[in-house]
Amino acid sequence: MSAVQQEKNGRVRILAAARTLFDNHGFHQTAMAELAVTAQVSVGQIYRLFRSKEDIIEALVLDDADQWCAEMEDVQARLDSGELTVEATFKQLFIHTIDEKDEALSFDILAESFRNPAVADTIGAMCQRFRTYIRYFACAANDKLSGEALDAAEEMILACLFGLGHRSISRPRLPASSAAHWTAQMIVTALRKV
Amino acid sequence: MSAVQQEKNGRVRILAAARTLFDNHGFHQTAMAELAVTAQVSVGQIYRLFRSKEDIIEALVLDDADQWCAEMEDVQARLDSGELTVEATFKQLFIHTIDEKDEALSFDILAESFRNPAVADTIGAMCQRFRTYIRYFACAANDKLSGEALDAAEEMILACLFGLGHRSISRPRLPASSAAHWTAQMIVTALRKV
Repeated sequence: MSAVQQEKNGRVRILAAARTLFDNHGFHQTAMAELAVTAQVSVGQIYRLFRSKEDIIEALVLDDADQWCAEMEDVQARLDSGELTVEATFKQLFIHTIDEKDEALSFDILAESFRNPAVADTIGAMCQRFRTYIRYFACAANDKLSGEALDAAEEMILACLFGLGHRSISRPRLPASSAAHWTAQMIVTALRKV
Repeated sequence: MSAVQQEKNGRVRILAAARTLFDNHGFHQTAMAELAVTAQVSVGQIYRLFRSKEDIIEALVLDDADQWCAEMEDVQARLDSGELTVEATFKQLFIHTIDEKDEALSFDILAESFRNPAVADTIGAMCQRFRTYIRYFACAANDKLSGEALDAAEEMILACLFGLGHRSISRPRLPASSAAHWTAQMIVTALRKV
């Protein structure tokens, strides 16, 4: 195995271990030494790849955002090709987000963003990427949307995504696919009439 | 001052100090001794009023939920008397929630709810109270709503409330009152057509 490949494997193992440990115990409660043992790397190797725990958080957020954007890229292509209606597009958008994983970790990171400007910037940049897709889908529902109405539509869809992504805390009755289906119908109706 | 009044003042001071310290540093990073100094009470007095930090978290969540429900009770009375249209009712609902305070603390508590069943139960019960008002307002927009459509409407409104309440992390462009206004319009439109 080449040195580059070894380093890449190390990075993947560190991030996977960090995700599990941070989610289970919180990142403030996870020591670098514990992370090294779980990832089967040395503490030195962690610090060669990441300057701090904050850098690890940033890498986790970026990995999640990259994955989400790749899925949205695919959904957008299927909308553009006519394979998906705009209602089905929104349903896919919600399905991809609903009942999020690693929620304890997500909330830890969000709490940290209010105490640490670097983490806030990472989250802000991630949301900016999400907004580009959301805006595109909103205009696909209603190509006359513009100005404040379009900004508001973007806000509402982003709010629904965030809320549905964390709906487990409110003990929902509906299965995920029904919630995604109905929300998509309601959002598209609202966008067409706004 | 009576002993009952002194105990009540102590409780108020402990909760106010806990809110600030937990929000600034996280509750896992806040020691009971530090809380006692800030609240100007003894550690013994804290333990006479609260069995654990978890009990303090529960009291903070209940205080917030009581305040929110009192506001919703008022909004509901104004809707029933005809003072508020259903659109204005939803705008009030969003205005009361948008750009929430103590967000670091809120996210800490939500993270904890995935690690601690007692905290999860407190949050679940709080959401159940919110759902009663949300359902009432949804039916005021469309009294034919029932079954899965009504459950879905409830989910979507709850998601919007949660998302708008935490929109600062996504760096919104619209002022709070515009976001509340437009979201209310879109929600009512969606509810009437679903």
